[in-house]
Amino acid sequence: MSTDVEIAQAHTLEPITDIAARAGIPEDALITYGPTKAKVDISKIPGEASGKLILVTGISPTPAGEGKSTVLIGLSDAMRLIGKESIVAIREPSLGPVMGIKGGAAGGGYSQIVPMEEINLHFTGDFHAITSATNTLAALVDNHVQQGNELGIDVRSITWQRCMDVNDRSLREIVTGLGGKAHGTPTETGFTITAASEIMAILCLASDLDDLRERISRIVVAQNFEGEPVTVADLKVEGALTALMRDAINPNLVQTLGGTPAFVHGGPFANIAHGCNSLIATRTALKLGEVVLTEAGFGSDLGAEKFFDIKSRVGGLTVNGAVVVATVRSLKYNGGVAKDQLTSENFEALTKGVANLEAHVRNVRQFGVTPIVALNRFASDTDEEIAWMKKWAQEFGVELVPVEVWAKGGEGAIDLAKAVMANLREDSTQLYDPSLGIEASIETIATNVYSAGRIHYSWKAEKDLKYLKENGWDTLPVCISKTQYSFSDEPSQLGAAEGHTLHVRKLLPRIGSGFIVALTGDVMTMPGLPKKPAALGIDVEDGMINGLF
Amino acid sequence: MSTDVEIAQAHTLEPITDIAARAGIPEDALITYGPTKAKVDISKIPGEASGKLILVTGISPTPAGEGKSTVLIGLSDAMRLIGKESIVAIREPSLGPVMGIKGGAAGGGYSQIVPMEEINLHFTGDFHAITSATNTLAALVDNHVQQGNELGIDVRSITWQRCMDVNDRSLREIVTGLGGKAHGTPTETGFTITAASEIMAILCLASDLDDLRERISRIVVAQNFEGEPVTVADLKVEGALTALMRDAINPNLVQTLGGTPAFVHGGPFANIAHGCNSLIATRTALKLGEVVLTEAGFGSDLGAEKFFDIKSRVGGLTVNGAVVVATVRSLKYNGGVAKDQLTSENFEALTKGVANLEAHVRNVRQFGVTPIVALNRFASDTDEEIAWMKKWAQEFGVELVPVEVWAKGGEGAIDLAKAVMANLREDSTQLYDPSLGIEASIETIATNVYSAGRIHYSWKAEKDLKYLKENGWDTLPVCISKTQYSFSDEPSQLGAAEGHTLHVRKLLPRIGSGFIVALTGDVMTMPGLPKKPAALGIDVEDGMINGLF
Repeated sequence: MSTDVEIAQAHTLEPITDIAARAGIPEDALITYGPTKAKVDISKIPGEASGKLILVTGISPTPAGEGKSTVLIGLSDAMRLIGKESIVAIREPSLGPVMGIKGGAAGGGYSQIVPMEEINLHFTGDFHAITSATNTLAALVDNHVQQGNELGIDVRSITWQRCMDVNDRSLREIVTGLGGKAHGTPTETGFTITAASEIMAILCLASDLDDLRERISRIVVAQNFEGEPVTVADLKVEGALTALMRDAINPNLVQTLGGTPAFVHGGPFANIAHGCNSLIATRTALKLGEVVLTEAGFGSDLGAEKFFDIKSRVGGLTVNGAVVVATVRSLKYNGGVAKDQLTSENFEALTKGVANLEAHVRNVRQFGVTPIVALNRFASDTDEEIAWMKKWAQEFGVELVPVEVWAKGGEGAIDLAKAVMANLREDSTQLYDPSLGIEASIETIATNVYSAGRIHYSWKAEKDLKYLKENGWDTLPVCISKTQYSFSDEPSQLGAAEGHTLHVRKLLPRIGSGFIVALTGDVMTMPGLPKKPAALGIDVEDGMINGLF
Repeated sequence: MSTDVEIAQAHTLEPITDIAARAGIPEDALITYGPTKAKVDISKIPGEASGKLILVTGISPTPAGEGKSTVLIGLSDAMRLIGKESIVAIREPSLGPVMGIKGGAAGGGYSQIVPMEEINLHFTGDFHAITSATNTLAALVDNHVQQGNELGIDVRSITWQRCMDVNDRSLREIVTGLGGKAHGTPTETGFTITAASEIMAILCLASDLDDLRERISRIVVAQNFEGEPVTVADLKVEGALTALMRDAINPNLVQTLGGTPAFVHGGPFANIAHGCNSLIATRTALKLGEVVLTEAGFGSDLGAEKFFDIKSRVGGLTVNGAVVVATVRSLKYNGGVAKDQLTSENFEALTKGVANLEAHVRNVRQFGVTPIVALNRFASDTDEEIAWMKKWAQEFGVELVPVEVWAKGGEGAIDLAKAVMANLREDSTQLYDPSLGIEASIETIATNVYSAGRIHYSWKAEKDLKYLKENGWDTLPVCISKTQYSFSDEPSQLGAAEGHTLHVRKLLPRIGSGFIVALTGDVMTMPGLPKKPAALGIDVEDGMINGLF
């Protein structure tokens, strides 16, 4: 069997100018990066965002793999096959997981976006621009202190962290500024991964360059000796940071193997950030396409909840349809089967594990959308298992459509495309009202989406809450950081955990993003590398990159 | 008077496809990054490197500014005006100084390379690729230790540092891996600026992608518990790091305001690294152009020495001519005049300061090249001062040509272009024979180029020397890190310091680069930001970037 990268490299890509023409993008709006990638100058795309928006989400992820992006990409190509002008709007991969556990993220098999090696490596430099702006700001904060500290920044209260697009656990907790007076002030700090940085969130929520500049100016970097917030505007460096982001704000255009135009732009993780591609890309796609296929990270508890409650709220978006991706293997894993035994039939485990899928379907319905379950078929799935799933769907009352997108591309998702188009709605909603306060918002999500029984605030989180209230920030939406593996904050609680306690560890003001981050459990904003990093298998031969998969 | 960025933005750029055609670059070798930038696939440029290579260097830099790049760019346009097919091959600017003290580096006035804002910000992402590869390697080293440490890496001996393209003094000395077992091992380490990283040096000295991969595999990252070197090849990650560098290795093509094709590729600093643009770009330019104008950082003691002794040695280059750039203001500063009094005539200071120029001219001559002095005229220079300089040149026995490149572009350097073409030679040389050992190499440079009286090795440097000898690395060329402001290692010793002591602090094996770095004085491989960083003046208005100068 060919690997993803082999399939992608064997494919002849269309010139990006042709893809742009197919999407209706005017020639003068296209800034090409080589023959098959481009940025699109959004100021040159007129029109209303009138397309239909379909959100693809999934069950709780497992090591078995669900293929959410693969289904989305196959579905987009299937839409074109049934005569719908579809456009993809998804996130950019992060180099951290590419070198770590995933080795790439751009769909799979015959449902991929290409050029996959370039998308998976530096792409058009958006992540690097964010890293650069984030770390330039950190240097400017420390330099302000070093050069007289006019604003009276209390070094012990600097909350602005550096970032890096690398999985590097050693950078989670560090001390900087050692070595004496000439080298800064010793400071306890750390790095997050770029995907979890505030500037990433800002890129993904800004409506244009002016809004981005405005949001950057609102970023809180520290407190002064009076305990008052110090912002980027106080430091007067929003202009320089915006300059570093000027090109990154334009969405990137590539193509699927089926020739569907694909915007791939912005890449916050959904466990430790808000998990949605850029609002700018989604809006641009909605101006250009009849149907826009988008996704949000991990399950409905993470990306989808944030898509409705954060992104759609900020952007005034309506979600017209949703797909929940599941696999028989993943449901068995959620039912307690070990990773190496997922190919054997096990209806007991399936019965237990399907509770996870039920919870995700119920979650999506809470936002006013009727989801369709896409059952992503693997070669090892038996006909009996598929039949069992169909029976389950009928009893549970949800439409289930098997797809074979890895092997067949768009042809493998035509039924799904038809089902999605037959189920469009116009009335998606948000779950909570932020004006009732952040505790109420967290409670609503924890109870209704996570099925938690109670919420515990740490001593630190209680202190954070006080600071938020003092500054009037407690009525901002909340972005909960939680493990993706469980509805609870404990990764080992698979299936459909209920009645658990959600442990809120810290509440971090992200005033530029316009939300408050709630860290729960022991979720970490800087991942680590596994024992055998994917980097070990990556190589270059005759200029071609191998080992991405 | 217009600023540099205003002049650059008022200029109508030619399409990069036209510039490429002018340079004789085949269409299929061009990978465009927007309409005015491109990378060039070097595998598609046939031919011999038969052009004439002109090295532009300068006197010891001062806050008064010498305009070395400005003269180089003006000279390249002047060459075209006198009918020579010139090509520029220079370094890429670093974001650290752009946000710090310089606010941009792409020439000035009517002698600039454009698009200057893009060249000065992320450009085509080469620096980010280097940062990314460097930090990915650091994470892989730490992860190896964390996941069982098969190679027996002694954490106390990890020499691989992370890097960042930011001036951030707080990152010079840090402790990583705090917070307990799950977060790595506490390690004393630090960041260098990207321009001083080993992967930057490798990019600039590699002959092609295979050579780059080979050099990366030789990088020494640490010692094991037996004190033996641990390399990237031992970690088996050279393939992944090369993949991250695959696109960066292709040189970037832009244009001067006069329409001369300009390769801008690689950017090591000359004080804390080897200070020359990439060998690949220089060779490609020599294949395409009749005359190639290149530069090396700071004065002849730093970049030029390394251009001859490191880059030309590795690449088998002959330097056919050289220009030493000087200004009356800078010579007065070198003669002891304060920065705010440089516009007044002061022949006493000029007499004293011109000794600096004399030393640089003598240095270049040691490499078998006859330099021409380009006197870069400022509006404040008086006719008497210019006359004085001409008289000095006659007495000293060097050809001096005044230029007015800031205000007049190529027209202001026609005499210089003619003088350069009339003085071509074919026999540039290296100064020392590395096989005699690194102590002999350092002594030769210190005595002949720096006019030092003696050399002092620190206790640490003596230990380093022992390690180098044990591993057979002491016969590699040396790359001396030294302040740019003085021939000595003490920045305040202006003019033509003589008889001083060169303090060698550390000797660092850079086996991938193929040289040994000697740190002298208190030179630091991570700069800091000044009291009023240039970032304060940078902004974006209607998508245009202001405040770069």
